[in-house]
Amino acid sequence: MWIYEKKLQYPARVCKADVKMAKYLIAQYGGPDGELAAALRYQTQRYTMPTGQSKATLTDIGTEEFAHLEIIATLVFKLLKGVPVEILKREGLGENYTEHGRGIFYSDTTGMPWTASYIQCKDDVIADLTEDMAAEEKARSTYEHLINLTDDPCVKDTLKFLREREIVHFQRFGETLGRVREFYESKKFY
Amino acid sequence: MWIYEKKLQYPARVCKADVKMAKYLIAQYGGPDGELAAALRYQTQRYTMPTGQSKATLTDIGTEEFAHLEIIATLVFKLLKGVPVEILKREGLGENYTEHGRGIFYSDTTGMPWTASYIQCKDDVIADLTEDMAAEEKARSTYEHLINLTDDPCVKDTLKFLREREIVHFQRFGETLGRVREFYESKKFY
Amino acid sequence: MWIYEKKLQYPARVCKADVKMAKYLIAQYGGPDGELAAALRYQTQRYTMPTGQSKATLTDIGTEEFAHLEIIATLVFKLLKGVPVEILKREGLGENYTEHGRGIFYSDTTGMPWTASYIQCKDDVIADLTEDMAAEEKARSTYEHLINLTDDPCVKDTLKFLREREIVHFQRFGETLGRVREFYESKKFY
Amino acid sequence: MWIYEKKLQYPARVCKADVKMAKYLIAQYGGPDGELAAALRYQTQRYTMPTGQSKATLTDIGTEEFAHLEIIATLVFKLLKGVPVEILKREGLGENYTEHGRGIFYSDTTGMPWTASYIQCKDDVIADLTEDMAAEEKARSTYEHLINLTDDPCVKDTLKFLREREIVHFQRFGETLGRVREFYESKKFY
Amino acid sequence: MWIYEKKLQYPARVCKADVKMAKYLIAQYGGPDGELAAALRYQTQRYTMPTGQSKATLTDIGTEEFAHLEIIATLVFKLLKGVPVEILKREGLGENYTEHGRGIFYSDTTGMPWTASYIQCKDDVIADLTEDMAAEEKARSTYEHLINLTDDPCVKDTLKFLREREIVHFQRFGETLGRVREFYESKKFY
Amino acid sequence: MWIYEKKLQYPARVCKADVKMAKYLIAQYGGPDGELAAALRYQTQRYTMPTGQSKATLTDIGTEEFAHLEIIATLVFKLLKGVPVEILKREGLGENYTEHGRGIFYSDTTGMPWTASYIQCKDDVIADLTEDMAAEEKARSTYEHLINLTDDPCVKDTLKFLREREIVHFQRFGETLGRVREFYESKKFY
Repeated sequence: MWIYEKKLQYPARVCKADVKMAKYLIAQYGGPDGELAAALRYQTQRYTMPTGQSKATLTDIGTEEFAHLEIIATLVFKLLKGVPVEILKREGLGENYTEHGRGIFYSDTTGMPWTASYIQCKDDVIADLTEDMAAEEKARSTYEHLINLTDDPCVKDTLKFLREREIVHFQRFGETLGRVREFYESKKFY
Repeated sequence: MWIYEKKLQYPARVCKADVKMAKYLIAQYGGPDGELAAALRYQTQRYTMPTGQSKATLTDIGTEEFAHLEIIATLVFKLLKGVPVEILKREGLGENYTEHGRGIFYSDTTGMPWTASYIQCKDDVIADLTEDMAAEEKARSTYEHLINLTDDPCVKDTLKFLREREIVHFQRFGETLGRVREFYESKKFY
Repeated sequence: MWIYEKKLQYPARVCKADVKMAKYLIAQYGGPDGELAAALRYQTQRYTMPTGQSKATLTDIGTEEFAHLEIIATLVFKLLKGVPVEILKREGLGENYTEHGRGIFYSDTTGMPWTASYIQCKDDVIADLTEDMAAEEKARSTYEHLINLTDDPCVKDTLKFLREREIVHFQRFGETLGRVREFYESKKFY
Repeated sequence: MWIYEKKLQYPARVCKADVKMAKYLIAQYGGPDGELAAALRYQTQRYTMPTGQSKATLTDIGTEEFAHLEIIATLVFKLLKGVPVEILKREGLGENYTEHGRGIFYSDTTGMPWTASYIQCKDDVIADLTEDMAAEEKARSTYEHLINLTDDPCVKDTLKFLREREIVHFQRFGETLGRVREFYESKKFY
Repeated sequence: MWIYEKKLQYPARVCKADVKMAKYLIAQYGGPDGELAAALRYQTQRYTMPTGQSKATLTDIGTEEFAHLEIIATLVFKLLKGVPVEILKREGLGENYTEHGRGIFYSDTTGMPWTASYIQCKDDVIADLTEDMAAEEKARSTYEHLINLTDDPCVKDTLKFLREREIVHFQRFGETLGRVREFYESKKFY
Repeated sequence: MWIYEKKLQYPARVCKADVKMAKYLIAQYGGPDGELAAALRYQTQRYTMPTGQSKATLTDIGTEEFAHLEIIATLVFKLLKGVPVEILKREGLGENYTEHGRGIFYSDTTGMPWTASYIQCKDDVIADLTEDMAAEEKARSTYEHLINLTDDPCVKDTLKFLREREIVHFQRFGETLGRVREFYESKKFY
């Protein structure tokens, strides 16, 4: 079970009004390679992991991704808060306003609702960890696109932090994959 | 952010081998009215709630629903663990085995992957809380169907606990709706 | 069965060219909380309702929602009729034009096709009627967003009529829920 | 707008308990080529039809398909009414029971919720009417599969009536296509 | 099996920078009536075709549609190559850039990922070929919308070639339908 | 463009009637990790690959996956051909028969239609190739599940061939990733 602690893992600061950026950022909330996809993928794969270390790694990183989801939501919330309807219309967020007001929904940047079809769980530790490494690379790539789309130094700072975390997770999944291979080899030979 | 505590909110015990029940239980994992739907719905609606109490209620219940998700996963994991392929085939889980082995995936009982289309967030506290009350009633109803589908007293016990929690949540959302109405009336008149 | 009468339940007038509004209005045609979702939800829930009055209420309101669907389609049709391709492009409807010309399709404002995942039918009168009350609140909220998005007094007038009907439906579902509870209590005790 | 008349277009009789048939019949309720798909397709294409006759044909047939939807729902309702949970489980309807009890939902036979992706509206009378002719052929083919799947003479009788209607609709769409071509040619030359 | 030949069936030339056109063209890549839908529909229907000629026609046209898919991809790739992020943002492609950079994805113009729900395979030669004729008409109609959306003579030239091919395919499916009817009649009487 | 050669890359032999296996095999036709997903993923990623070798690898392997798709379809076609309706019903293929007769459709084992949400294209060579390596591991894992689900030596033989190809593809993607890294390093330093 989880305990909620009322603080963000990293500050979600916004220095500049940039309504369009709210729409792009939603990619990391409910998009195919976003934080929700990562969190849910790892939390369900852990049940069939073969070792304590691999289970723990998936639980830890999965829990951290929920914290990242909260950072993204906070950025989007700040970017949209109090923005007049006229500006939402002009900047291409009239569609979002119609369906969700200034609320935050689990969709990709084009309004496609999040689907579990984005993720997989094979009950095969090699396949699952390789998929997790790919997930981290795809999330890193999306963060790089997002960093190119803004010139707000505060938003950039938060996105760079999140981008760095994906690289760290990629490495941890790589190490876990190595250890799991060792575990299977030790079981076979001794 | 969240902190993971390595314990279940309530024991997930299984007394009887019943592979088919694993398939039915998945309704509360990745089905339209399941625990994932509840957790994600409340966690995203909280950003546009108008009062501290309503924000806190959604955060608390949303966090508890993640704990319920974990209970359901544990039941399914126990029901499927070590079951031979022949029995999975005979009991109608050959399809699941093909795609996910004995792993647990976010789908409804028929294999339809979870989609955010099941949930909504309107940035309208009356609409959002009424939708939450409906969500709890629909989850209660699914638990009642599941209780009718098994005669395993252990599984029944866990499902009854979860069913009770939905009723408590329904009441808490009802109270929150009352308080929010009071808050708006007090703002209007003074 | 239904008989078609060639008239609208309420006039669908447009006083001002406003192509973008056609895109927003589609929310109430094929969006998650629109008239199609309402009509189809009530028409299928009626089969398992326990009393004649609850069956009749769902049939009546379900039939009225089809009339609303027609009003929305007429508004969209009038807003798009004869608009040159250049203006559709400039106003953000080039995508719609590519796929559907000036035709009207069952999607939300972002182009996501309507899916039955938006609605539910639990064979549980309490759950179903609570979901219906939530549906009416969500539709009301969408109409309020739409009213904020236009300054055409004719479109506003039609939207206000439709918004009022949702409030009336909400109340009728509430009364039906009360009566159904009475029915079950009377059955228990006498 | 529509007026509901409390009678079925054709009797929906069931002579034999056959729970599995309820599952197959749902194809014509919420499946890709079912009555809902037909009704909604024609009702939305009519707005951009070029002649009074083509508009009227789509409205008429679209309205009749809603009557067929009601016939299918009545068959399914009768086949499922009062069937004990144990038999639903044994006959492969435990999944449906978990999510919807004995209620009727808009999905295909495998539980996939109905989606507007099944249908199209191109604002091109030739393309739209050709798609409608294909829709009628696909529905006819599904009815033939369903007739092969049952040996209940009552259900067969109803299905044969519905199959015949699809053939009549196919012919009416063909005639309408012919007339529309004549209309365009007359406009070109005189 | 297939052998890849490194040439396009028809030149994919672009004379004018027109980023928005890249977004519209994607309709024929991953949209409901696009080349992918056509190719996959014919390739899977061929297995249950009753005659050698009908099998061969579906295989041939299905293979040609893959060549068309490649032409569309090449047009989109050329239109997007090297376009600065600022221009992508201004022209309404910021969402695509966030998720896919300047890559090409199987979605419709609004970002909805391609789904097999767009196509059908009934194991009924009349239904399948009628659906194929409808598919060709819908694709023709989309090409006409696209031709109206651009004034680049090079892009128009390629689109006109592709539009012509759809008309030829429509005719070939019509002839195949005629021959299949003859085949069945000859089988019945001799 | 592609040229069709009327032969299979590897024989698709079936020694034993096993209708259920047809349903499971469909996983590799239209499932999340099947041959269609692989073929389409590689064919679209190739446009933004940075080197001739990486483009060629994706084109080659993508073309081979279409050949595998054809092998799977042939196996399914043989397993279903001429099987009486009664047996399809008994073995759990009555749903498929209702919608598709004995035809082959792009869905997963549970009837969920194939969706492009399963795949990704990031215009980032590292992310794309890592995703491709994960795709091959997931396909290998599905083949292993399928091999466990049958005791037909002919079907097993074909599945083992296909499984081996996935391992070879995984290695080729790994080598390509290595070469691409070298390419970028050489560009940076000289």
